[in-house]
Amino acid sequence: MRPQRPLRVGVLGATGAVGQRFIQRLQGNPWFEITALAASDRSVGRPYGQACTWRLPGDCPPSVRDLPVQPCAPGLDCEVVFSALPSGPAREIEERMATAGYAVFSNASAHRMDADVPLLIPEVNADHLRLVAAQRAARGWEKGCIITNPNCATIGLALALKPLHDAFGVRRVLVTTMQAISGAGYPGVPTLDSLDNVIPYIGGEEDKLSTEPLKLLGTLAEDGRGITPAAIAISAACNRVSTRDGHLATVSLEFAQEATPEQVIAALRAFPSRPHQLGCPSAVQPVIVVRDEVDRPQTFLDRDAGRGMTVTVGRVRRCAVLHTKFVLLAHNTIRGAAGGAILNAELAIAEGLIR
Amino acid sequence: MRPQRPLRVGVLGATGAVGQRFIQRLQGNPWFEITALAASDRSVGRPYGQACTWRLPGDCPPSVRDLPVQPCAPGLDCEVVFSALPSGPAREIEERMATAGYAVFSNASAHRMDADVPLLIPEVNADHLRLVAAQRAARGWEKGCIITNPNCATIGLALALKPLHDAFGVRRVLVTTMQAISGAGYPGVPTLDSLDNVIPYIGGEEDKLSTEPLKLLGTLAEDGRGITPAAIAISAACNRVSTRDGHLATVSLEFAQEATPEQVIAALRAFPSRPHQLGCPSAVQPVIVVRDEVDRPQTFLDRDAGRGMTVTVGRVRRCAVLHTKFVLLAHNTIRGAAGGAILNAELAIAEGLIR
Amino acid sequence: MRPQRPLRVGVLGATGAVGQRFIQRLQGNPWFEITALAASDRSVGRPYGQACTWRLPGDCPPSVRDLPVQPCAPGLDCEVVFSALPSGPAREIEERMATAGYAVFSNASAHRMDADVPLLIPEVNADHLRLVAAQRAARGWEKGCIITNPNCATIGLALALKPLHDAFGVRRVLVTTMQAISGAGYPGVPTLDSLDNVIPYIGGEEDKLSTEPLKLLGTLAEDGRGITPAAIAISAACNRVSTRDGHLATVSLEFAQEATPEQVIAALRAFPSRPHQLGCPSAVQPVIVVRDEVDRPQTFLDRDAGRGMTVTVGRVRRCAVLHTKFVLLAHNTIRGAAGGAILNAELAIAEGLIR
Amino acid sequence: MRPQRPLRVGVLGATGAVGQRFIQRLQGNPWFEITALAASDRSVGRPYGQACTWRLPGDCPPSVRDLPVQPCAPGLDCEVVFSALPSGPAREIEERMATAGYAVFSNASAHRMDADVPLLIPEVNADHLRLVAAQRAARGWEKGCIITNPNCATIGLALALKPLHDAFGVRRVLVTTMQAISGAGYPGVPTLDSLDNVIPYIGGEEDKLSTEPLKLLGTLAEDGRGITPAAIAISAACNRVSTRDGHLATVSLEFAQEATPEQVIAALRAFPSRPHQLGCPSAVQPVIVVRDEVDRPQTFLDRDAGRGMTVTVGRVRRCAVLHTKFVLLAHNTIRGAAGGAILNAELAIAEGLIR
Repeated sequence: MRPQRPLRVGVLGATGAVGQRFIQRLQGNPWFEITALAASDRSVGRPYGQACTWRLPGDCPPSVRDLPVQPCAPGLDCEVVFSALPSGPAREIEERMATAGYAVFSNASAHRMDADVPLLIPEVNADHLRLVAAQRAARGWEKGCIITNPNCATIGLALALKPLHDAFGVRRVLVTTMQAISGAGYPGVPTLDSLDNVIPYIGGEEDKLSTEPLKLLGTLAEDGRGITPAAIAISAACNRVSTRDGHLATVSLEFAQEATPEQVIAALRAFPSRPHQLGCPSAVQPVIVVRDEVDRPQTFLDRDAGRGMTVTVGRVRRCAVLHTKFVLLAHNTIRGAAGGAILNAELAIAEGLIR
Repeated sequence: MRPQRPLRVGVLGATGAVGQRFIQRLQGNPWFEITALAASDRSVGRPYGQACTWRLPGDCPPSVRDLPVQPCAPGLDCEVVFSALPSGPAREIEERMATAGYAVFSNASAHRMDADVPLLIPEVNADHLRLVAAQRAARGWEKGCIITNPNCATIGLALALKPLHDAFGVRRVLVTTMQAISGAGYPGVPTLDSLDNVIPYIGGEEDKLSTEPLKLLGTLAEDGRGITPAAIAISAACNRVSTRDGHLATVSLEFAQEATPEQVIAALRAFPSRPHQLGCPSAVQPVIVVRDEVDRPQTFLDRDAGRGMTVTVGRVRRCAVLHTKFVLLAHNTIRGAAGGAILNAELAIAEGLIR
Repeated sequence: MRPQRPLRVGVLGATGAVGQRFIQRLQGNPWFEITALAASDRSVGRPYGQACTWRLPGDCPPSVRDLPVQPCAPGLDCEVVFSALPSGPAREIEERMATAGYAVFSNASAHRMDADVPLLIPEVNADHLRLVAAQRAARGWEKGCIITNPNCATIGLALALKPLHDAFGVRRVLVTTMQAISGAGYPGVPTLDSLDNVIPYIGGEEDKLSTEPLKLLGTLAEDGRGITPAAIAISAACNRVSTRDGHLATVSLEFAQEATPEQVIAALRAFPSRPHQLGCPSAVQPVIVVRDEVDRPQTFLDRDAGRGMTVTVGRVRRCAVLHTKFVLLAHNTIRGAAGGAILNAELAIAEGLIR
Repeated sequence: MRPQRPLRVGVLGATGAVGQRFIQRLQGNPWFEITALAASDRSVGRPYGQACTWRLPGDCPPSVRDLPVQPCAPGLDCEVVFSALPSGPAREIEERMATAGYAVFSNASAHRMDADVPLLIPEVNADHLRLVAAQRAARGWEKGCIITNPNCATIGLALALKPLHDAFGVRRVLVTTMQAISGAGYPGVPTLDSLDNVIPYIGGEEDKLSTEPLKLLGTLAEDGRGITPAAIAISAACNRVSTRDGHLATVSLEFAQEATPEQVIAALRAFPSRPHQLGCPSAVQPVIVVRDEVDRPQTFLDRDAGRGMTVTVGRVRRCAVLHTKFVLLAHNTIRGAAGGAILNAELAIAEGLIR
């Protein structure tokens, strides 16, 4: 179901790094039209083009330059809200927006693990959208809702795990990430910490990477009121390396039912895209590209595949300790943040949840 | 046993990246005196200071600037030879040198897995030096010998595994490396491949990292004629990141006998240094520094610990898939190459193998 | 004059860094169709997709993947040839191709300073195309010709100098460049030379930057047979910095007739684009963007302006030693190489020189 | 005159980037002993080792780890104070310290241009120390004083200009800098602004670079009460590049009396070091190293020359616009900050100004 007219969209936290990505990615999207931008107090009242130092290549899109920055509160002239807020303020503001009737698609971690909030990747667990009915009932919301996308490192992993879990049953996962600087926002990582260096720690990241996939791959209760998490043991080691965008990871897997590398590759390549079938403009097909070269994916060469929405896998081979290992890459601020949340909104529209 | 006078030393492959590190590290070492430098044909006959573009900070040491570059062949005026040759030429040249009576300490991979050649880390398997007697007998060498040090990524891993294997029995190891550019020599990795990028592949590296530790941790036969490799399954994923020096790795371990992180830390910290006890000038004590900060070791901050001879471990914690995981760092061109080979020579001298 | 059908195009040196840029930039260009690819002997006979390791983000365009690589010699099925050859082989090969009737647009330096060869930037000296008639007459070529584009650092400088020279008469120029790694081709600059470093020297570059603009801004003789170089003193200091693409430069100028920064800005902004007026598909308008922010242009943010064809100027202000100074940025492998040569070909077509 | 015992030293702003450099550089200096560390309120009262996140390679020196952090105010147990304060608080705090009798050696810009405050580089203008008598008289200070070192980019330039000004009379200087990240302190420049980028602007820097050398090369009034600035026109363009330490610059000069490159090189090499003659422990001789290689100095290779106190010059050659041009490199946080201030203190002691 495609919308008959573009939905009016607002962005919360519009001046930050993820907020800018939202604005950039919404340009040319036929399903949405940006009509409201909101940010913190010190920006409120100024035209967006003045309040915001645009940090992506090129210039701030002319269509939003003159929009006045408004407070992050009900009163925005729009139906759909994308939230690029930090987790702290996100919790309360997003609830207030949903209560006021906005459909909130959030990149923040605040509500991700709430029992009645979908943690959503359209290709992975579109059925979890049924939680929205329970959410509205429980919270007394008529139209509003909160739908979240996972952590930027989780998205790539969960996308790769999904077809493998369906085919072979994933039991244990060991993952080491080499994450890009943009994952920390702006100003984020000081150059003195990144130049000629690797930082083997990212606060909170290993925990998210170990738990969010279990909800994403979990099973919706028959009454649509909750998710039983998948029974997979995930151990993560997260590192910050000096790349701008693109989270690369090495992954080792143990399956319930052993599989050859060829079978693993076949399952990854056959992974269907429900949002693509539904005609969502941000969806890509194939979702996962498996490369044959011995030295791919590489962060710089492959992060922009599928306009940043494709996950690239390579070096699928046997693991001497678990069963199979491979290399995984996803664009963290597109697929892993703004692009992912926009695709979530597209799915919710296509499924008829938002009118 | 300390040498009564400095031993005369030659360097093979003296103009390359590792050759320069040998020369740099031998400055001020009281046990050695550089008396011969050898390199490929196009350098032969020229003073070293002219034949070589010095690529380490500072200038080529004055003491070697006027040494004439000689061919990589017997005839060098020295007793000990450090080999920084590429593996191809190393095989034959090193054998010829040992046959001519030189004690060859090689950084090349050519002879590492030969049954009668010690693959040596002094703190790990000093007893393997007994292979030299078998080697000399088998090959009819009176004074000469070949002693090798492992791959630059292996050294840090094997040093950390040794005390843990002794204490708890290491069964399975999953390791992901983030290796420095200098590991590929000069010119090595083009900037266009490294800037804003991670390359998830290093030719031959995963194989070395999976097999060399087994020989290093293996058991010397009673007759001193061979090594039974340790029974450990190692799965490695090797990546090139944009750091100059220092190979960082995330490591997950399964033990025969479970151990708490505290016990692991205690075992690492208690690891003794035989070369330090013997007074070897390049030895450090402690060999392994375990840091308590949540975000260490970092490549830039910790690679030079102990003048590059210390291995730094951090973030020792439980692993949800195997038993324990941690982060490991070792300087690849010092501990992992030139410094390691020099320490090997010091041990051989201290043990009375070279006179 | 637009071509009635796309011209058939061949690329010499197609597997190298600039060759790949040519192929990338020609995708979607309605005036050209790639019908032949040529490279050195070791690639000849193989399909391009196998002979070439594609080093730009994304994949080798499917339309050229199966083209067989041919020798760099007459016999190519095409009318127009883009040369991405190194200067050494370029001299003879390009002449042979022109003799055989091909219109050769070369990025090599070999023929740039030949008296009868246009050194061309369409917005700067379109009139120099008249040299082609003299060239054909002198060399006995009927259809073939050689037209060159300047060095990658020259192009941005000459584009900025042109409107200022017309308006105020440029007398003296002091320029310091901070040039990107891609300017050295592939493999080019080793990471060990670029990481955490600046190299204050690029072989031959300062000479080109001091002389090529004089020909570009020079005056065509009335008989169309030669160029009188402009009388400008240029002093250049060229540095290699660790950026992927985009040559940034600081420029100080002395004029014959003094001008305020405002007048300089006005002249730069008013600079017309003849190829844009002629409808050339690669042309941009404005050619030069003058930014008002205090800290722009920045290499990363501005190099891709106008799909890499725009030159960005900023920080126009008085100079305490000469008259005016500013910062200048141009994309070195697009505007400064492949994109520039393609625009040259478009101009030659629009001017009716190639049929 | 050498001190009979080490002077007791305090560091203001001890936890910041320059403060840490002070502490690092004072280790092993026989003239000084750190007895007091001071920082902002949130650190006061805690042991330095806990209050400070040490960001230089290696660990915080054990000798200062347990020193309690004190307020930046009189009451510190020391005679000499090194100030690594930001310019804002520096103005008042440094005056208060001097009033209380401390000899303050400041890296801050606050007092640099005060008429009675020496802006000092010991090799350049040791005679300017006579201002201290006027300063004490004017401000009613008996023992206390304020002596400043110049901006980190100024120091290298002024050191190179001094012998040339003495020999040939410098009239005009055009300088473009490529400055390291550490010049902005910590956290300083975000990685998102530095990676694969050059920023052609550093707030306030061009102004300092144009004016501070004039005071440094200026003439002390006969009555010792002021400095007449040198009559040199300096035009600066300052850029931030992605290097950790070391400010590289291209410099073009016009002399009153023309000089050949050979004469310029000779003058630079003959530059004497008064602090070296006086036995100051941080002084180096030669002060300026002129390299002959075509591609030196390079930031990474040469910044640590003379333990970071040597200025390296290279590529001395004719300039087509002014007379001579060259490349210049100085370590910005050693020679250009902490090391420079320490040398200033050593000179003041050697000259008998501090007892």
